[in-house]
Amino acid sequence: MGEVRVGLVGYSFMGRAHSNAYRQVPFYFPEIESKPVLQALCGRNEAAVQAAAAAMGWEDVETDFEALIARDDIDLIDIATPNNVHVAMAIKAAQAGKHVFCEKPLAMNLAEARQALAAVEAAGVVHMVCHNYRRAPAVSLAKQMIADGALGTIYHWRSQYLQDWMMDPEMPAVWRAQKAVAGSGALGDLLAHSIDLALWLVGDIERVCCDMETFVKERPALGGVDATLGATAGGGEKVKVDVDDGVVALARFANGALGTMEATRFAPGHKNYNWFEVNGSKGSIIFNLERMNELEYYSGDDEGGLQGFRTIQATEEVHPFLGLPDGGGRYWPPGHIIGYEHTFINTVADLLVGIEKGESPAPNFADAVKTQAVLEACEGSADAGGWAEVETA
Amino acid sequence: MGEVRVGLVGYSFMGRAHSNAYRQVPFYFPEIESKPVLQALCGRNEAAVQAAAAAMGWEDVETDFEALIARDDIDLIDIATPNNVHVAMAIKAAQAGKHVFCEKPLAMNLAEARQALAAVEAAGVVHMVCHNYRRAPAVSLAKQMIADGALGTIYHWRSQYLQDWMMDPEMPAVWRAQKAVAGSGALGDLLAHSIDLALWLVGDIERVCCDMETFVKERPALGGVDATLGATAGGGEKVKVDVDDGVVALARFANGALGTMEATRFAPGHKNYNWFEVNGSKGSIIFNLERMNELEYYSGDDEGGLQGFRTIQATEEVHPFLGLPDGGGRYWPPGHIIGYEHTFINTVADLLVGIEKGESPAPNFADAVKTQAVLEACEGSADAGGWAEVETA
Amino acid sequence: MGEVRVGLVGYSFMGRAHSNAYRQVPFYFPEIESKPVLQALCGRNEAAVQAAAAAMGWEDVETDFEALIARDDIDLIDIATPNNVHVAMAIKAAQAGKHVFCEKPLAMNLAEARQALAAVEAAGVVHMVCHNYRRAPAVSLAKQMIADGALGTIYHWRSQYLQDWMMDPEMPAVWRAQKAVAGSGALGDLLAHSIDLALWLVGDIERVCCDMETFVKERPALGGVDATLGATAGGGEKVKVDVDDGVVALARFANGALGTMEATRFAPGHKNYNWFEVNGSKGSIIFNLERMNELEYYSGDDEGGLQGFRTIQATEEVHPFLGLPDGGGRYWPPGHIIGYEHTFINTVADLLVGIEKGESPAPNFADAVKTQAVLEACEGSADAGGWAEVETA
Amino acid sequence: MGEVRVGLVGYSFMGRAHSNAYRQVPFYFPEIESKPVLQALCGRNEAAVQAAAAAMGWEDVETDFEALIARDDIDLIDIATPNNVHVAMAIKAAQAGKHVFCEKPLAMNLAEARQALAAVEAAGVVHMVCHNYRRAPAVSLAKQMIADGALGTIYHWRSQYLQDWMMDPEMPAVWRAQKAVAGSGALGDLLAHSIDLALWLVGDIERVCCDMETFVKERPALGGVDATLGATAGGGEKVKVDVDDGVVALARFANGALGTMEATRFAPGHKNYNWFEVNGSKGSIIFNLERMNELEYYSGDDEGGLQGFRTIQATEEVHPFLGLPDGGGRYWPPGHIIGYEHTFINTVADLLVGIEKGESPAPNFADAVKTQAVLEACEGSADAGGWAEVETA
Repeated sequence: MGEVRVGLVGYSFMGRAHSNAYRQVPFYFPEIESKPVLQALCGRNEAAVQAAAAAMGWEDVETDFEALIARDDIDLIDIATPNNVHVAMAIKAAQAGKHVFCEKPLAMNLAEARQALAAVEAAGVVHMVCHNYRRAPAVSLAKQMIADGALGTIYHWRSQYLQDWMMDPEMPAVWRAQKAVAGSGALGDLLAHSIDLALWLVGDIERVCCDMETFVKERPALGGVDATLGATAGGGEKVKVDVDDGVVALARFANGALGTMEATRFAPGHKNYNWFEVNGSKGSIIFNLERMNELEYYSGDDEGGLQGFRTIQATEEVHPFLGLPDGGGRYWPPGHIIGYEHTFINTVADLLVGIEKGESPAPNFADAVKTQAVLEACEGSADAGGWAEVETA
Repeated sequence: MGEVRVGLVGYSFMGRAHSNAYRQVPFYFPEIESKPVLQALCGRNEAAVQAAAAAMGWEDVETDFEALIARDDIDLIDIATPNNVHVAMAIKAAQAGKHVFCEKPLAMNLAEARQALAAVEAAGVVHMVCHNYRRAPAVSLAKQMIADGALGTIYHWRSQYLQDWMMDPEMPAVWRAQKAVAGSGALGDLLAHSIDLALWLVGDIERVCCDMETFVKERPALGGVDATLGATAGGGEKVKVDVDDGVVALARFANGALGTMEATRFAPGHKNYNWFEVNGSKGSIIFNLERMNELEYYSGDDEGGLQGFRTIQATEEVHPFLGLPDGGGRYWPPGHIIGYEHTFINTVADLLVGIEKGESPAPNFADAVKTQAVLEACEGSADAGGWAEVETA
Repeated sequence: MGEVRVGLVGYSFMGRAHSNAYRQVPFYFPEIESKPVLQALCGRNEAAVQAAAAAMGWEDVETDFEALIARDDIDLIDIATPNNVHVAMAIKAAQAGKHVFCEKPLAMNLAEARQALAAVEAAGVVHMVCHNYRRAPAVSLAKQMIADGALGTIYHWRSQYLQDWMMDPEMPAVWRAQKAVAGSGALGDLLAHSIDLALWLVGDIERVCCDMETFVKERPALGGVDATLGATAGGGEKVKVDVDDGVVALARFANGALGTMEATRFAPGHKNYNWFEVNGSKGSIIFNLERMNELEYYSGDDEGGLQGFRTIQATEEVHPFLGLPDGGGRYWPPGHIIGYEHTFINTVADLLVGIEKGESPAPNFADAVKTQAVLEACEGSADAGGWAEVETA
Repeated sequence: MGEVRVGLVGYSFMGRAHSNAYRQVPFYFPEIESKPVLQALCGRNEAAVQAAAAAMGWEDVETDFEALIARDDIDLIDIATPNNVHVAMAIKAAQAGKHVFCEKPLAMNLAEARQALAAVEAAGVVHMVCHNYRRAPAVSLAKQMIADGALGTIYHWRSQYLQDWMMDPEMPAVWRAQKAVAGSGALGDLLAHSIDLALWLVGDIERVCCDMETFVKERPALGGVDATLGATAGGGEKVKVDVDDGVVALARFANGALGTMEATRFAPGHKNYNWFEVNGSKGSIIFNLERMNELEYYSGDDEGGLQGFRTIQATEEVHPFLGLPDGGGRYWPPGHIIGYEHTFINTVADLLVGIEKGESPAPNFADAVKTQAVLEACEGSADAGGWAEVETA
C-alpha cells in the first residue's frame, strides 16, 4: 500500500476543504491503494498554522515554503493560497520534484500559466488544478451524457455564477477584492469555474466579448492581520476596489455554439448559484450547484406528449463516483445527498489515481492554460471594448 | 356608454388573441365605459376571412385594407399582420384618422419606426404597440416594486426567451423564418419582448454587443398558400433561412447596470420560457412566463436567517389588474390562475382607457422607437462584430 | 346549427365562471354545432340580477325559479347556487323537461343525491355535475395515462386541497361557513373535488376513516344581505361556526390501493393548492392546480441513471382539449398557458356535446351519487370515530 | 482534553454513517473537548468486521458483544444493528456502565422500550436514540421558529416519507422485510422518523388511526449469509413478506392539531423523500430531505401583496449547527451545501456534549418511549381497524 505524503500551503477556506478531502478519501475510496498522509501544513503565522494543523489533523507544520519543498518526506505540494503566489510556488514545487495540486485560477495571467505548465512538464511531475465542480456527480453525469451524444449537436451554452456576499459596502476589502492579490474579482473567482466547465462540456472557445463593473467603488481597508497574507492596511480608511464585482460575457465556441456567461457577487438571494444550461439538437441539461445532487434533463426522444424536463437525482450507484468498483454504493443510498465537500473528495481521489499512474488528471495545467487564455481574452475584451480572440497554445 | 369600433387586420395567432381580448374586456372590465365593437375583420383571402370572422364574432369583413380604413364606422385599426407591413398600414390608418394598435415589433428598422411615430403624432391619434407581457399581473407587480424602490439601485438585468418549436430541420420556412417578411428571427420575435421589458423595468440601454446564429441553414419551402401572405414558394425544394435562430447580447444601461439577453428557438424543452431576473442593492426578482402567475422575490430586508426567494402568487386583488375599482376580484379568487390570453385583455383594457382619455398608453410608438433602436443596434453589432451605440431620439 | 338555450341560477363566483364558459365555448370549440345562448339569468334580487345579466351578457332575467323553468325557450338549467337548494332545483328542472347542469357537491346528503339521480333518469334529461378540475388538460392527461397503463397497478392515492382564505377570525360567517346552507365546510367544498378525482383516476373507495376540526369556533355574523341568499343575521354579534375548517381522511380503494386525503382552509400560503399524487407499479404522477398546466411524471421505464420526475407542460396539441379535430391548436401555442376559467369552458363543451348526443357526460348524477356516498361516509366516520363503509348503489 | 472511547456494533449502512460521524466530529466541532476514539468495532463475522474496521479507521474489533461491553476501555456503546437486538444490547451495555447510543427504532414494541429506558435510568448512563434528521440544520431551524412562535397556533401536521427501493418483486426479502428482525416495514423504518419529528415539532399525539398494506406478498428468500445476521434462508424459494410496504395514518395531537402521516417504499421516483409541512395561525413551513439544506417558509406577517413561500437556504452561520461559537462558519460558506452524513455528525456532537455534562440529549430513551407508543398504537389501530389511543408514561 502506497502513501502520498502531502504538504499543503494555506489553511483558510480552501485549505480546509482540501484537508478534509485527504482525510476522507481513504474512507470513501477504499479501492485506491495510495493513501494520503497529511504530512505538513504550511503558513507564515506559526501560532495560527499550528492551531490549524491540530484542528485538521496535520502531523507537522512549516512556516516557510522553501523549507516545505526541501523536505524528503513530501510527495505532493497542494497550493491553496491566494492567487498571486500560485505560479511561483507551483514552479518551485515542480523543480523540487514534487507533484503539484493547485487551486484555481492557476495564474494571474496567461504568460504565468504557460510558465507553470512548462515547469511541471519539464519536471515530469503530476499536476492538476482544483476545479472541483467537474466532479459533482451530476456534472460528471452531464459530461458523460454529452459525450454519449444524448444532446446531439450543441447549440447553446448559458451559465450564471451568482453570489451576494460582498454587497454590503461596509464589508472590508478582503484579498478577493484586491487586484494585486486576487488578479481579478468575480472573473477569476467565479467565471473561471464556468469557463472550465464550458471548455470541458462544450469545447474550445474562439472569442469572447466581455463587460465588467465594480458596483461598490471603495471599501473599508482590511484592518489587522489577514490569516493568510499577514498584515494589511488597517484603520478605518477606505481603499479603492480595483477588481470587478460583476462580469458578463458572450462566447463563440469552435463548434459554432453560442455562449453567454455571467458571474457576480451582487445578486441578492443567490448564495452559490453556479448554474449552467446546455441546449443541443436532441435535448437540454441544466445544473445548479445549490441543488448539486440534481441534474435537469430534457430529451427530445421521449414519447410525444410525455416530454418534459426531468429531475435526475444523481445519487445512485450508476452515477459517476457513486458506485464502488465491486458493487455497492460509495456514499449513501439514493436520495441521501452528498454536499460541497464531496466534490473535493472526488477530485483528490482522481488525483491520487493520477499519481499512481503517472498521469495528470484533467483539468491539469494544460487545461488551465486554456482557461487562463479565456480569462485573459475576457480582460482584454473588457479593456478594449469589443470581441477578443482567445489565444491558443 | 361609448363604443370603440375596431377594424382588425390579420386572423392567425395574433389576430385570434386580439379578437378574444375585445370580446372579453367588457366581461372583465365592466368599469370601462368604452365597449369595443368587433366591427370588421380584414384579410386578403375572402373565404378564409369570412370563416374567421364567423368563428370569432366579427360583424363584417373586408378584403382590402384601403377599404377598411375608408370606413366611417371604424375608430381603431388593429394591425396583427406579419412585420413587413406594420408601418405602412399604421401610417395609412393614422392618416385616415384612426387610432392605431400594432403588433410588435412595430417596424422592420429604426427609420421605419420613426416614420410611424411621426405619422401618428401628426395625425393626433392614439397609438400603442402590443407588448402584452408587460401586463401579466406579476410583471406589472415587478414594475411597481422597482418603482417603489423595493430593489434599490439596479445592478443586473438578465433575460432569456427560449423556445424550441423550430428545431426540426424539416419544418418549412414559415414567414417567421423569412427576412423579407419578418425582418429578423428570434431577434424581432422574442428578444424584442425582452428589450421592451428591460427598457421599462431598468431604463435606457446605451450600447449593446450582439451575436447571432442560424443553426438550420435551409428549410423546405412553404408550399401552397400562406393564410396571411397568399401564395409562397411551393414544392419540395429547400430555401435558405436568412433570419437568426438564436441571438445573444450584452447590454449596458444608462444607469450603469449590466445586462445579458438571449433569445432562441433552439432550446429543447422550453416552450415559451420568457424569463428575466433583476438584481438590485436591496433585492432581486425573477419572472418566468411559463409560470406567469408567479413572481419570485428576494428581499435583503427580511429578518436575518429567514431570508429566501419567495414565490408570490400574483393572483390577489391587491395585485395589478386583479382588483375591481370598487372592491372584489376582477378575475378569480387567489390561486385560481389566469393565462396567456389575459395579458391581451389587460392590454386592450388600457388601450380603451387611453382612447377615452386621448392618451397613448405605454408602450406606444415612442416607446417602440426606443425598442427598435436597440434591435437595430443589435443587428449592427452582430454585422460589424463589436459594441454598437443605441441611437437616441 | 343547433342552439342550447341556458337558464342559469346564481351569479356570484360560480355563476360568473359558468357565464364565461358559455360565452367562450363557440370561440374555442368551433366544431361543436350546438351554440349556447345565454337566455336568462335567475336571482331573487332583481336589481342585482339585472346588473349581473348586463355585465355578463345574458339576454333576460328571472327572479323566480319556477318562472324560469316554466319558460319554453330554455333547454338547460344550470344551478350555481349554494348547496342547500341544488337538489330541489335539479328535480324541478328535470320534471320540467330541462337538461340539468349542477355545481358540486350535488347534494346535502346521499339520500338527496339519489333523489336527484332518480329524477333526472325518470325525466330522461341530460345531467352533469360541475367537477371542472377533471378537464384541466393535465388532469385529463393523467387519466389517459392511467387508463393506458402508464402507471401499472395503482398503490397509493394522496391528495391535499389547501387554502387559507378563512383563517382570519374576524372574517364573517359567509354561507360556506354555515352548515344549513353549505352542508359542510372544507369537506363538501374542497374534499369533494379530491374525491371526484380519486374515484375517476383510481376507482371505487370501499371505506374511509375521517377526522375534522373547526379551528375558529365562532365568527362575526354576516351583516346585511347576502347576494345569493337574501337577508342573513346581521349586527356585530358572533355566531357559532358549525362546519369543518379542516378535514383529513384515510381511504381504502376497491383495488387495494391506500389513500390519504386532506382539505383545509387553514394552510397559510396555499391559495388554491389542489394537489394529488398517484403511485403505481410502473410510475408516478403529481398534479398541483396552482400550476395547472403542468403534470409531473416519473416513469420507471426510463433508462437507468436518467430517471427522474419530469415536468410535462400539458399545452401541446397532442394533449387533451388542446388540439382541434382538423389539426391546429384550440387555445394557444405550447407554453402559452391557459387558466382556471378554461376548465369550465372544456366542461361546458363536453356538456354541449352530451346534449347533442343525448348522453350525460361524466361526472353525471350517477357519478355524483358515488362522490356523495364517500362524503357521507366521511361525515359518519368523523361522528362515530372510526372507519365507515361507503354505501354502494 | 477528554476522550470518549466508542464500541460500535454493526458496520453496514448505519455503522458506516456512525463511523464517519465519529471521525469527523473533531474536524467540524473543534470546540467540543471530548474527542471520540474509534476503539472497537463489533460484528459476528470476523473477516468482515476486520475488513470494515480497517476501511473505516477502527483500532480494534470484537466478534462477541459480551466481550465488547466487558472491556474497560470503552465508554460508549453504539448500537447500529437490526432492530430486534437493540433493546437487549442497550440493557446489557447500560448494566455494564456504558453510555448508550442506539439506532432507531429503539425497540420492537412499547414494553421493550420501557425496559430499555428503565435500564439506562437505573444505570445512570447517558442515552440517546439516533433520529438524525432532527439535526439537519433546516429542521432544527424549523424547531426554533416554532418555539419562537413564528407559526403561531399549530393547526396541521402533514408528513410523507416516500421511497421506491423495494418495488421490484424480485428483490430478496432483506432483513428490513422480515418482521422477526425488523419488527415492521415502512412503519418502523420510515414512519418512526416522521413520528419523532411530529412529537418534537408539534407535541404529543393522543390517538391515531392507521392502515397498512403489503403490496408484494412474497419475495425470493435472501440466499447465503447476511452481513449482520449470519445465515438466512437460502435458495431460490419465495418467502412471505410479513411487514408493511406502505402505511398511512391520521393523528390527533394533544393541542388539537390534525395530523396525516404516510410512509411507503412503493412511491416511484421518490428516493428519500422525507417531507413534512406544518401549518399554524401565523404561517407555514415545509421540509424535504432530498433538498435538506432548504426550508420553505410562509409568513402571514409579510407585507400584503408580497407574501409567498420563501426558500431559506439554511446554510448560513446564523442557522443551527452552522456557526462556530467564536464566529465563523462550521462547515462551508452559504450555499455550499452539506449532505446526509452531516446530520449524523451534528447528532454525535450533541451526544458528546451530553456525555460531558452527564445529560441525555433528546431524543433520548424517554423520547423514544413516546415514539414507540405511537408506533404501537399504529399497529394496534391497523390490526383492530379504528382509532387507537396512544399510551402515555
